[in-house]
Amino acid sequence: MKNFSVTFLFLLAFLGAGCQDRLEYSIVIHGGAGNITPEYISPESASAIEAKLSEALDRGTRILASGGSSLDAVVDVIRIMEDSPLFNAGKGAVFNHAGKNELDASIMEGSTLNAGAVTGIGDIKNPITAARIVMEKSPHVLMMGAGASGFAARHGAEIVDSGYFFTERRWNDLQKKIQKDTVEKYGTVGCVALDRNGNLAAGTSTGGMTNKRFGRIGDSPIIGAGNYANNNSCAVSATGHGEFFIRYTVAHDISALMQYKKLTVVEAAREVIHKKLGKAGGKGGVICVDKYGNMAMEFNTAGMLRAWGNSKGDRGVRVF
Amino acid sequence: MKNFSVTFLFLLAFLGAGCQDRLEYSIVIHGGAGNITPEYISPESASAIEAKLSEALDRGTRILASGGSSLDAVVDVIRIMEDSPLFNAGKGAVFNHAGKNELDASIMEGSTLNAGAVTGIGDIKNPITAARIVMEKSPHVLMMGAGASGFAARHGAEIVDSGYFFTERRWNDLQKKIQKDTVEKYGTVGCVALDRNGNLAAGTSTGGMTNKRFGRIGDSPIIGAGNYANNNSCAVSATGHGEFFIRYTVAHDISALMQYKKLTVVEAAREVIHKKLGKAGGKGGVICVDKYGNMAMEFNTAGMLRAWGNSKGDRGVRVF
Repeated sequence: MKNFSVTFLFLLAFLGAGCQDRLEYSIVIHGGAGNITPEYISPESASAIEAKLSEALDRGTRILASGGSSLDAVVDVIRIMEDSPLFNAGKGAVFNHAGKNELDASIMEGSTLNAGAVTGIGDIKNPITAARIVMEKSPHVLMMGAGASGFAARHGAEIVDSGYFFTERRWNDLQKKIQKDTVEKYGTVGCVALDRNGNLAAGTSTGGMTNKRFGRIGDSPIIGAGNYANNNSCAVSATGHGEFFIRYTVAHDISALMQYKKLTVVEAAREVIHKKLGKAGGKGGVICVDKYGNMAMEFNTAGMLRAWGNSKGDRGVRVF
Repeated sequence: MKNFSVTFLFLLAFLGAGCQDRLEYSIVIHGGAGNITPEYISPESASAIEAKLSEALDRGTRILASGGSSLDAVVDVIRIMEDSPLFNAGKGAVFNHAGKNELDASIMEGSTLNAGAVTGIGDIKNPITAARIVMEKSPHVLMMGAGASGFAARHGAEIVDSGYFFTERRWNDLQKKIQKDTVEKYGTVGCVALDRNGNLAAGTSTGGMTNKRFGRIGDSPIIGAGNYANNNSCAVSATGHGEFFIRYTVAHDISALMQYKKLTVVEAAREVIHKKLGKAGGKGGVICVDKYGNMAMEFNTAGMLRAWGNSKGDRGVRVF
């Protein structure tokens, strides 16, 4: 009888651990990590960034609240940020060493592990849409350069000429206020979400690294490094010094620590960002949502532009 | 006293588990996985492949036996296979849909997690050497296309014109005997090794997928997917249907199952190749060496070209 009671208690504890309540929906957005402090960003720029993060968050939350998919929420949120010159993605993309724009993006759905990504494209208005097209319309996961652009354009992605990415005076003005090697370098955008059906999705989009060598690919289009989603664990989007995020397979490592070592999403994100990357000198951050809707926003830089919301009514937008 | 004894026994068991004897060196090579059966490969072709695998194995074993690094062994082994028209890498690279060669390669060292990779290059004789140059001479991990070629060439990588990759009559004769969509598709080469200093290294090189769309990138240049090395766990090189290997972050998943779930290298490789990939319909295989020198060679295809050796004197070369 005693043995039976002990077994029963263990069983209860086990079921309890496995049956954490799931939120109806949850979403986190980032606009890059780096030296984001009042010293480098003026009050006017901070207000503009906050307003854009808020607009993107509202769009994503509305989609999820009305029963839309996490995939749709992630794409729409990222398109809003790509269309703004405030972030290093889409319209605001930085220039490489050769004076060109090479944009990358990736997307993944946690229910199927389907994924799509593009790298080194210079003529697609919304790289995140090109990534979704590669995922949904091609047998491939990752496509680069003209091959990627051509394929996305044939499936309806909007083409722009290179002038689209050229910065207006306002963008130049803004940039002067933002120290180089910080926000410019780490201004990648991303979004992770859990929808009412329990499906996770993750998306990441970047304009690359200012003055990077022609042909360099960072972590943003690399599934498992800058982006990952798995309904068994979590969705992750990363931003930072991409080379470290590739070598440490950051996004998949967070998922693996949850699945195999039973860490929580916050513990896993901290382990990777503060212990592993921190020790190696890799700077950046991640946003995560786990399968229950719990969030993590961890960074080892001075700041990370971020916004979050969920079905409990939690909502936040942070520049500093 | 009783408690002390129990603690002591646990400590002994713990130390025992952590102190498995390490072999002085260990090496595994693959030449691709697919429909590799006597039905599709003639006895003459099988002999030629076996001789080349044996030559590559001897070179790698000699380097490791004489105290050379696993990194040097991996590069030299892969260069031998890249220089042969028998495999889908280097000289034997297949043609994409546009009739061009787009070659990929990657390399990683387990001691530092340093890594280098190139994708979509068409004019470098030995892509594995270009990958090593990116790792050792650039601040980047992954470079593509002309940017990658130019950088590698400036640092001494041998350039060839596209005619080099054009197939001679002998190669055509051989190909006729090898069914398309099988060996051609899965003929990636790779090598993993443990050296006398306890350092692991992994390398992978491929000519891509026959008739693939222009710009498609497979798993071979993706750290964590087709290639991974970590002195805390294992070195992995993969071959197969690259899209599945990216989505399942195969190489890093095997490492994570060992580190976080305490599976052996064979258990981890089987879990990923037979259970996860098998269930999803992803075809291919992996070779692995763990930090003790234990090997795993798992594939869910009809065959995988492979060779292995270690300091105990184990040695094998298998076509079928």
